[in-house]
Amino acid sequence: MTGRTARRRVLRISLAGQEGPVGAAQTSARADLLAAEEPLGIRVGGEALTLTMRTPGDDIDLAAGFLVSEGIVRTAADIASISICTGEQCGHSDHDKHSDHDGSADDGAGNIADVELRAGLAVSPALRRNFLTTSACGVCGKASISELSAAPSFDLNADQARVSAAVLAGLPDALREAQRVFSRTGGLHAAGVFRADGELLVIREDVGRHNAVDKVVGWALQAGRLPLSGCVLLVSGRASFELVQKAVLAGIPLLAAISAPSSLAAQLAQDAGLTLVGFLRGSSMNVYTGMQRIATSGEAARREAG
Amino acid sequence: MTGRTARRRVLRISLAGQEGPVGAAQTSARADLLAAEEPLGIRVGGEALTLTMRTPGDDIDLAAGFLVSEGIVRTAADIASISICTGEQCGHSDHDKHSDHDGSADDGAGNIADVELRAGLAVSPALRRNFLTTSACGVCGKASISELSAAPSFDLNADQARVSAAVLAGLPDALREAQRVFSRTGGLHAAGVFRADGELLVIREDVGRHNAVDKVVGWALQAGRLPLSGCVLLVSGRASFELVQKAVLAGIPLLAAISAPSSLAAQLAQDAGLTLVGFLRGSSMNVYTGMQRIATSGEAARREAG
Repeated sequence: MTGRTARRRVLRISLAGQEGPVGAAQTSARADLLAAEEPLGIRVGGEALTLTMRTPGDDIDLAAGFLVSEGIVRTAADIASISICTGEQCGHSDHDKHSDHDGSADDGAGNIADVELRAGLAVSPALRRNFLTTSACGVCGKASISELSAAPSFDLNADQARVSAAVLAGLPDALREAQRVFSRTGGLHAAGVFRADGELLVIREDVGRHNAVDKVVGWALQAGRLPLSGCVLLVSGRASFELVQKAVLAGIPLLAAISAPSSLAAQLAQDAGLTLVGFLRGSSMNVYTGMQRIATSGEAARREAG
Repeated sequence: MTGRTARRRVLRISLAGQEGPVGAAQTSARADLLAAEEPLGIRVGGEALTLTMRTPGDDIDLAAGFLVSEGIVRTAADIASISICTGEQCGHSDHDKHSDHDGSADDGAGNIADVELRAGLAVSPALRRNFLTTSACGVCGKASISELSAAPSFDLNADQARVSAAVLAGLPDALREAQRVFSRTGGLHAAGVFRADGELLVIREDVGRHNAVDKVVGWALQAGRLPLSGCVLLVSGRASFELVQKAVLAGIPLLAAISAPSSLAAQLAQDAGLTLVGFLRGSSMNVYTGMQRIATSGEAARREAG
């Protein structure tokens, strides 16, 4: 496994004035840290299931979380083993079958997560069929929007969690603070799971936001913490349909995003009983669904009105 | 086809003070515009090829650009026709084959781009095999990193384009200005193609950044403008491996991103002869590869030194 960052020589150009002439540009060479992006193959029972572009690190979490997000496993006991190996160590690899791979794996090719499920559990051929894709995605292999929402999940409506708006407002700073330790590349998405009182349980980073979420879910699976009842999942970017789907499948009752949700994200959140918060910035936020889980000052007034 | 935005009721919560007590929260209900996200199926020759989550609009551009990005077509003449229809209008649809679709398509399910290639051109079975995925992605269906880079492309090294750093520095404002007209959701990625003198040729938006790039490439294909020699592709977010790959396949010599590139993006850019600019913000930028295409004040000095 290679590192999470890669050093690269870069030419920095600074224009002297905002509207200055072309002649005013200054250039300086320096080393820059980039977020590493490399392919990881996920195999189940010896057969290639998917290929994802990810930031190396927490690869076992990523593989485990991917299987949760696709509805293939639900508890730690569903997975007999996960090991990380290169194509060479793994022996015959389906991922290499169609390639003219020359064995020079300095680009990270050949990183493979090898998963064995518990006896009696298998990936359906229909699901396996369409699974060479870019990232843990929640859409791959599905043929219609109705099928997209049909995966088994925990009952979020039964989750009585309540989180204060003040605690929520403090989570982005906590995520950024934890991220500052992990990364100085400016190129990584982060996903964090918090308790309702604001305590950070886990943070994971990746060039792909889906991967970052799969990594925290995979961590939770292996820690025996699924469903993540009463918890908040915070993502550093936007909330798409797929991220809502991953939260639902992990039993997380509240998904908060620094940026905007999509229309389908809000619709699925409502259907699934998930509380969806967007534009969580500074001291404000938008609540799209599941307001009953957010505690605010208006509460007493609303109770009186209701 | 439904709209690019969806209106949704949202509860806005504002905490009175940054560190104020929970009791200080103020809530107000209002209508919010969300970026629309809906599935689009792409069929080639009557067979389902992929399912992508996209923002409705410019769907023909998206389908055409996807086929360019996957190396399936290279010129407008490679496509005999593209039409947009719903599942019902299309008659038998592979996308509906496995679903229990009840015909209520109010969630946008059933939007399909139906592509016919020119006689003699077909999608290889190997490529078709693994193509139900989340978005136009450039990785789907590939089995190794060497295969990833093996797609046919224009020779970027022959492109003598030069762009001044001052022109580059002005592009993000131009993109945002054009975006302001198109969207008020805060939830859309944008991709724009500019001439070397800074003139905007086309801008497209999408919840998926890969889709936004495919839409501009598909526009260029149909306008007979491929390869986009001498042009700059600007993306509103980060530059991943896949976006570099799309630029290379469209013959674009310079890719600029507002945010960070990944390590593999920089590596592929170098291998392909693409100029890669990142952190293009305010009056500065980082040039990772292909510096010879950027004109700066330091030029005369560098010529003397070299």
